[in-house]
This record gives sequence, structure tokens and C-alpha cells, in this order.
Amino acid sequence: MTTKIADRAAQIQPFYVMQLLKRAQALEALGRNIIHLEIGEPDFTTPAPILAAASDFLKLGEVKYTQAAGLPELRAKIAAFYAQRYQVRLSPEQIFITPGASGALLLALSATVNAEDRILMADPCYPCNRHFLQILGADAKLIPVDAGTRYQLTAELVDQHWDANVKGVLLASPANPTGTVIPSAELQNIIAAVSKRAGFYFSDEIYHGLVYGTEASSALQFSDSAFVINSFSKYFGMTGWRIGWLVVPEAFVTVTERLMQNLFIASSTPAQYAALAAFEPETLIELEGRRAELQQRRDLLLQGLLALGFDIPCQPDGAFYIYANCQKFTQDSFQFAVDLLEAEGVAITPGKDFGRHAANQYVRFAYTTTQARISEALDRIHNFIARGC
Amino acid sequence: MTTKIADRAAQIQPFYVMQLLKRAQALEALGRNIIHLEIGEPDFTTPAPILAAASDFLKLGEVKYTQAAGLPELRAKIAAFYAQRYQVRLSPEQIFITPGASGALLLALSATVNAEDRILMADPCYPCNRHFLQILGADAKLIPVDAGTRYQLTAELVDQHWDANVKGVLLASPANPTGTVIPSAELQNIIAAVSKRAGFYFSDEIYHGLVYGTEASSALQFSDSAFVINSFSKYFGMTGWRIGWLVVPEAFVTVTERLMQNLFIASSTPAQYAALAAFEPETLIELEGRRAELQQRRDLLLQGLLALGFDIPCQPDGAFYIYANCQKFTQDSFQFAVDLLEAEGVAITPGKDFGRHAANQYVRFAYTTTQARISEALDRIHNFIARGC
Repeated sequence: MTTKIADRAAQIQPFYVMQLLKRAQALEALGRNIIHLEIGEPDFTTPAPILAAASDFLKLGEVKYTQAAGLPELRAKIAAFYAQRYQVRLSPEQIFITPGASGALLLALSATVNAEDRILMADPCYPCNRHFLQILGADAKLIPVDAGTRYQLTAELVDQHWDANVKGVLLASPANPTGTVIPSAELQNIIAAVSKRAGFYFSDEIYHGLVYGTEASSALQFSDSAFVINSFSKYFGMTGWRIGWLVVPEAFVTVTERLMQNLFIASSTPAQYAALAAFEPETLIELEGRRAELQQRRDLLLQGLLALGFDIPCQPDGAFYIYANCQKFTQDSFQFAVDLLEAEGVAITPGKDFGRHAANQYVRFAYTTTQARISEALDRIHNFIARGC
Repeated sequence: MTTKIADRAAQIQPFYVMQLLKRAQALEALGRNIIHLEIGEPDFTTPAPILAAASDFLKLGEVKYTQAAGLPELRAKIAAFYAQRYQVRLSPEQIFITPGASGALLLALSATVNAEDRILMADPCYPCNRHFLQILGADAKLIPVDAGTRYQLTAELVDQHWDANVKGVLLASPANPTGTVIPSAELQNIIAAVSKRAGFYFSDEIYHGLVYGTEASSALQFSDSAFVINSFSKYFGMTGWRIGWLVVPEAFVTVTERLMQNLFIASSTPAQYAALAAFEPETLIELEGRRAELQQRRDLLLQGLLALGFDIPCQPDGAFYIYANCQKFTQDSFQFAVDLLEAEGVAITPGKDFGRHAANQYVRFAYTTTQARISEALDRIHNFIARGC
């Protein structure tokens, strides 16, 4: 038989960080002590009330398919959460429980984007967003951004780069890898620019809740026609469960349900029952404690990196990432990451995992480990730099 | 903003059975007693050792992402299962743990099929298979089949219908909705026909293990270049967990891993830990007991339907479905299903959910409920027919 892989699959780049992760694990197997600042997954366990909800559900043994769109109780709880947190009224019908934000994104794009369409995104951004479009025969139009716009698109950039093939805009706030939040007024302007063009607005809000000293607005506060991708992975501490959600405009409820049935049948039932406890007061108290800890880590790492000479012109407001310009030390941030790992056992993510624009000048640090480990990592990076990298 | 749905999404038909299910639930809410023979999910709970494995795992609280391809221990167990059950040697590297067979199918097709490609399938077949291709801008070429080929394609049909756009064949054995198994010699011939054309062979083996008085061969017994889709949902009783697997040829390991990272990050971790207990001797004893029960149900329902005058020319060997010709009673099997539900409270699935070929002459019965309920359903169907439907 043939061994020819599909064109789209050939286009999809590997994550370069996987090479580093593999090498880090090999070094660990040799007994080296590695500090992981490359991993986009916090070191917290799933909150106890969520684990308890899952365990209680499993005692019944009835792990059947849910409705394709998800458990009605969970959809209702998410709708109530939007009312309380954002003062946004949603019908639970608009909310689909998905296998992670990945599933939400595939669902939203499958419902809206035709082959050959282009969606505007910031460069740098989360690379999978672009790859989902390629799966569908569409593509991203990546717009280079820098500190001048806090690494985000603006309404002006949307206007400037819109063309006949562009059908919408996808932005994350807070963003991966930069941690920056789109200010409310700008978000409103961007949505207005997209509306004017009769486009789609896809709002990646998976890091909502993880903001430090500022607020992140939901696109739904400014439009009932936006698609919102969210997840229980990040703020709610449920990475491994693979559960997220998608909010769709009323006009897309029927088609999204049909796509959900076909693409996934439904999301994992134990994860859905577990997530029922995500909005409990006891869980939220725990999560706010974690948010405070992440803020301290952010402050520690940010001050430390600035002191070492990394250029971080805009404060990362959220998520758990710092995107740092390292051109003072290197012209090749991937090699910098490789050498830092080999020399000092600190693993970070090279900029080229997030796009093309100035990618060789940047690395991403994730503060997903303890303050003690972050301090030690800063010492090791200091040594690395002091020796001339 | 726009409310225009994507072309591909508009092409995807709803499941007609959903209308029946919704009506059945409405009738139940009014106090009617409904017998569900429409649902492709057995009434068994998840086996106790699998539940125990999940509960033990949750006690640790560490529900993190696994490697994209899945837990190495689980991949090794599946490889060992192939060696033991099929005498097929696989490297665990070839096995990807997916969010259900749905995830496996999306992964396999994304890695292989280009836009405009056509994949041969039997009509009738499981409708989502065609829809996954449409998501990718490709499509199925549906080949009408009947009892003469046990509702399956043959090497001869593959030869006859292959054209320049056809890039492969996707078959299920046992099949949904017909329950028929492809005999080993024919499967070998089909694979040879595909090989001769340098095509892809996708083998849907999700009902393996659920065969009664015969054996189902794996495509891997005849080719190391086949893609095999399997699942813990059916034989292993794990529907709601959403966990399956995909076996890919060696040449596709790298690209499949890249696609898995991008499309799903990984499969649900609790489901993966749960599935570690799926191959335990204690679990397999329980599952074999269930298989024996399903065989009794098959026999009961088959004999009953034949006695009532349904035409079922080939014995359904596996899965938990009987695809019955009802043209003795109706020229419109969907209306027949609607009327049977309203009159007697028996829910079944209309043929048109599975294709176009003679679909109005067929209905599917699922024996996913107890023998007592099946007997009662047969009595009700008898009354329905006796009154002239």
C-alpha cells in the first residue's frame, strides 16, 4: 500500500519544544536535575471537590454517553457562571461541552470556515490554532505583532490586513505565549471591525481567571455573535481530563450539535461529572489561592529575568507565561534553549514554536513550578549568561 | 457578524434517529413505557475492575496530560493483546490512544486523505465515517451492497468502483448497521486489491470481540500497512469514557504523533488509567459473560423478527444490531419507525441514517436491552403489524 502522507499533515510543523522535552527526560534518566519551565501545565493537582465529584459518579458505574452537547446540568452551570462573572446572558443551548479547548476549536472552525478561507491571527500565537485551519483546507493569515500593540491585533491591524479571503479573526486573551490581555476598549473595537466586515470572531478565553492585577473581558460582553473557546484545563486545574466548552451564537446551535455528534459523539462522561464541582464555592476558594500563588511566581520570574537582562517590554498580565526577548544573548533562541538545557538543566520553549515573526529572538518561560524552583532556575540562567551562554 | 455556516457543515445530515429519540423521551416524560431498540450502547455498566482502576488513579489527584500518543503502559498492553488474540506483532509506537474511535478515525484520515480524494465505503454503513471525510474536503464513494455480499464490499466491487479519485477503502467488520463480518479470505482479497492500487485500507474493528459463533479477523493479520480503528467502548464496556485507539503503519508514526498533539493534545487521562484494567483476566471473564448474553439476545430478536415476517437474509454475526428489511410492511421505513414508536412505544432506527441504498426498506434493531424487554418489544411489534401498522 501507499506510504504517502496527506498534504495538510505534511504542512504541520512539529513542536520544537518536544525535542527539548525528550532531551530533558533523557538527561533526567541519567540523574540530572532538570527545572521544567517549558511545560504549559501547572504543578497543581485537580481540586479536591472536583476529584470527589468524579469518584462519587464512578461509584454508580453508569458511565454512559451523555447528550452530544453535554450534560444539561453542566451547560446550565456554565451559563450561570457567565451571568455572574461577566453579566452576560446565555442560553445553555449555546454551550457545548467539548474534549478540551482543542475540541471546541475544531468544532467552531468546522462550523464556519470553508476551504481556502483565511483567519487573521497574531504572530506569535498558539500554533495549533493555525493547524486546525490547515486540517480544514483553510489557513491562518499571521500578522506580525510586537510590544507596541502588546503582541495582540488591534482594530487598525484587522482593517489593514483584511482581504477577500479573510473570513474572521481569532485572538486569545490572555494569550499564549505572551500572557498579554486585550484591553476591553480595544476588544470592543476589534469586534466592531469584524462585524463591519461580516466576519467571524473567535475568542480563545482558555486563560480567563488567570489574570493578575487586571481583568480580562469576554468577547460575549460586546457581541452575541462571537464564538468563545474556553476550558476547564487552566483556571479550573483539569488539564488531563480533556474537557472544555464552546459558546456559539444562537444561529449556530443546530449545526454545532450535528458536528458534535459526528466528530466526537460526546465528551468524556466522568470529566463532565467532575466539572460539575468546578463552580462550587469551595473549589473557587482553592482556585483563587492558586491564582495568588501564580501571581507571586509571575512577579518573581519577571523581576528575575529583567534583572538578568532579558527584554520584556510589556508586563504579562495573565496565563502562566513570560515571552522574553533574548537577543542580547543570542541570535538563535532555539540554540539558546538547547544550550541552556545542556549546560544548566533549565528547559524553556523556543520562540519558533509560536510563529515566524522575530521568533529567533524570543523564548517562552512558563511559571508552572514552585517559587523555590523558579529561584533556582534564575540562578542557573545567571550562571549560563555569566559564562557567555 | 455573519451567520453563514460552512459548506461542509451544511452537507452533514442530522441523525434521523435523534428525532425519534427526542420523541421517545417526550413520551416517557408523559409516563409512556418506551422500549429502546434504537440505541447503540449496551445496558451494561463499566466492568468493576476498570472502575476500580479509575478510582485508584483519582485518589492520587495527579490528573495531568499524558504523552500525546497515550500512556506507554496502555500502548504496550494493546500491543500484547494483538500478539495474543491475533498473533500479530506490533510495536507500541504504532498504537495511539484516542478520544474514542471517532478520534482515531479523524486522526487516520487527516494523516492520509487529501481534499477531493474519495474513499470507498459500503452503503449502508456508519454515517459519521462519510462526514469525517467531508470535514477534510474529501468524500466517500458509497457502493450499494446487499445480502449477496453480506452487505460488505468485496475485492471484485473494489476493483469495479476504483477510479482516479479513489485513494482507499474503509470497511467495518463486524459492521454497523448490519452486524456482518467480512470472511477472512475475502478480507485478504480486498486488502490485496487495495495494495495493488497503492491505496489505503482503513479497518473499523470497533465491534471486534462481539461476534457470535464466528471469528472476525483483523486487517493486521494480512497487512502491516492497514490503519486499524478500535475502541474500548463496545466490547470493553467503556462508551462514556471516550477512549479508543488507532494502529498506524510504521511509516505514519511520526505524522500521526504530530497530528495527535495538534488535534487533541492527548486523550482523557482517567479513561486511560481505567483502560489499563481492560485486559485483566477478571475483566475478560466478565466481558465474555456479556458476549454470551448478547448472543442470546441476538438469537431471541433474530428469531422473533423472522417469525414476524421481517426479511433478514444474512445472519448478523456480530456487534449488537440487526438490519431488517421491512418492505413487507411499508415503503417508508422512517414512517414505520415513527408509527411504531407512537403506537407501541418501541424505538428503532430508520435505514436512512446509514445511507441511501434501499434505505427506505430497512430498519435497524439494537439488542442493547434485556431479553425480557426484547420479548416485550416483539409482542408490541406483533400487535403493530397485526393491526396493519
